[in-house]
Amino acid sequence: MDEFGLIARYFAPLAKDEPGALGLTDDAAVLDLPAGARLVVATDAIVAGVHFLPDDPPADIARKLMRVNLSDLAAMGAHARGVLLAAVFPRGTEESWVAEFARGLGEDVRAFAAPLVGGDTVATDGPLTLALTALGTVDARGALTRSAAREGDDIYVSGTIGDAALGLKAAKGELPGLDAGSREALTRRYRVPEPRLALGQGLVGIAHACMDVSDGLVADLGHVCECSGLGARITAAALPVSSAARRALAGDPALINAMLAGGDDYELVFSAPAAAREAVAAAARAAGVAVARIGIMTAGEGVEISDAEALRVDLKTGGYSHF
Amino acid sequence: MDEFGLIARYFAPLAKDEPGALGLTDDAAVLDLPAGARLVVATDAIVAGVHFLPDDPPADIARKLMRVNLSDLAAMGAHARGVLLAAVFPRGTEESWVAEFARGLGEDVRAFAAPLVGGDTVATDGPLTLALTALGTVDARGALTRSAAREGDDIYVSGTIGDAALGLKAAKGELPGLDAGSREALTRRYRVPEPRLALGQGLVGIAHACMDVSDGLVADLGHVCECSGLGARITAAALPVSSAARRALAGDPALINAMLAGGDDYELVFSAPAAAREAVAAAARAAGVAVARIGIMTAGEGVEISDAEALRVDLKTGGYSHF
Repeated sequence: MDEFGLIARYFAPLAKDEPGALGLTDDAAVLDLPAGARLVVATDAIVAGVHFLPDDPPADIARKLMRVNLSDLAAMGAHARGVLLAAVFPRGTEESWVAEFARGLGEDVRAFAAPLVGGDTVATDGPLTLALTALGTVDARGALTRSAAREGDDIYVSGTIGDAALGLKAAKGELPGLDAGSREALTRRYRVPEPRLALGQGLVGIAHACMDVSDGLVADLGHVCECSGLGARITAAALPVSSAARRALAGDPALINAMLAGGDDYELVFSAPAAAREAVAAAARAAGVAVARIGIMTAGEGVEISDAEALRVDLKTGGYSHF
Repeated sequence: MDEFGLIARYFAPLAKDEPGALGLTDDAAVLDLPAGARLVVATDAIVAGVHFLPDDPPADIARKLMRVNLSDLAAMGAHARGVLLAAVFPRGTEESWVAEFARGLGEDVRAFAAPLVGGDTVATDGPLTLALTALGTVDARGALTRSAAREGDDIYVSGTIGDAALGLKAAKGELPGLDAGSREALTRRYRVPEPRLALGQGLVGIAHACMDVSDGLVADLGHVCECSGLGARITAAALPVSSAARRALAGDPALINAMLAGGDDYELVFSAPAAAREAVAAAARAAGVAVARIGIMTAGEGVEISDAEALRVDLKTGGYSHF
């Protein structure tokens, strides 16, 4: 099947909810934005062997591609408007693979109301390479950014942290001692992250700085610090950890390093003034996402974990109940 | 040099004219569009060995990447607003290569007032793969599309046709009999196309259908036919051919097939009613681009070349002066 056949059969149906996509038959899409809206746009590429495992289910690869990009919109507090896909397939990719990929993409296109509005398809000798551009909008109040944290702000993180780092290990068979249910839950978090769009939208006007966790909590909070000219002090015992991760940690406390230092959880880490605690809690409730207050922005620089020692001790003795 | 270093050193400077790019340090860009504007967006990926030669000059690869995408905006009659780059570099790419690539990209970013507003950088074992998303705007009169041709419309093409197909051959050393100056001119057209933004903008409200020539004139005009539910009849003798291409044809008349059937000239092929001939000429003059009237939209289907036989005869006898 040639490029035009693939597009007509598998990708054009993902464009049907957006007349401006012109059925993916034209040179570009033409989109109307709400009056007064500002355009928010991000692009992320994922490559087989780097960002996902080549034998991951194709529908999950599509979902991850969508979600890592939508997570960038979430971090700005934006509403999704549409996506464009540049797909570089290895020569000889089976049509059934493309069909499954498009099925997964289609589910997320509908789930997030982000129609496919354009793209490009190429076959090469290289690894599967997928670049997605996500388009979104924010209203006149503007977007959340990394650089807006202020000294004394509370630091929050959504959901749970470290699952994706453990999920990658589980998918690679590196957590053989862990129960199958926990392995499956962690692998799921690695393969199909949940972009926190509703939470990000609810935090506009409340949070100061915000970004999504794609390189690990410590590294990404470090970016907030750098961009805001501040430091952060977080309390390890306050970090939200899933029950599956807790079980993994019980078997190997040293896993905490991977959970904090690596991992693409695609949760939001954000700062807000102490006066906004009730507003943050209300936004989290409205979005249906838990948020944990894990520390404070300081006048220093870099990320300091105040109870790292206590953390290790707690973990060793099994006293990690706050995780 | 790591990803953040590369971005800060070579790519962030290409974002400095757009405050909404946030210095490429945030999750996404936040852009204001003119009041009442519609967003036009396209994405195209180019891969080493497929769309360019691996040893092409890096600055030219950057320019081609920019221009093939801007050409999609031109085909819609849009104004460029910004671009996002997903760059997948082969592991071990020299920093000097990236520096040259960014230099070429930077020249075009400035030349076309299309700042870099976001992107992603990855290193893999595969071939150099570059995906660019171009953002543009059209005003309330709307965008040109492929599907708006009407029966009886004149068919026009801008610039000259077939240079890029010959330029690829020249770059591969397949036109050894041609003079060096012509080879260089054709290679230049292959490597660095000229997106016809001003012409496309000038044609809004005048032309009916429009698209850019990226798969060869006959194939792309065929897309206009298909999308418009019409046929096209063109006169080979009316096709605009550069003096360099004319010299190549003198040596090998069969090259006309490659010139018509293949080649990414990134000229505009468009249709307009006969009553608009003066308006088309005025738009072309204002844009500083020649346009040639090459045929007519018919009630049939597909692209018919009315004087293909005459063409071949003319070419063989050297009587190809209209080219």
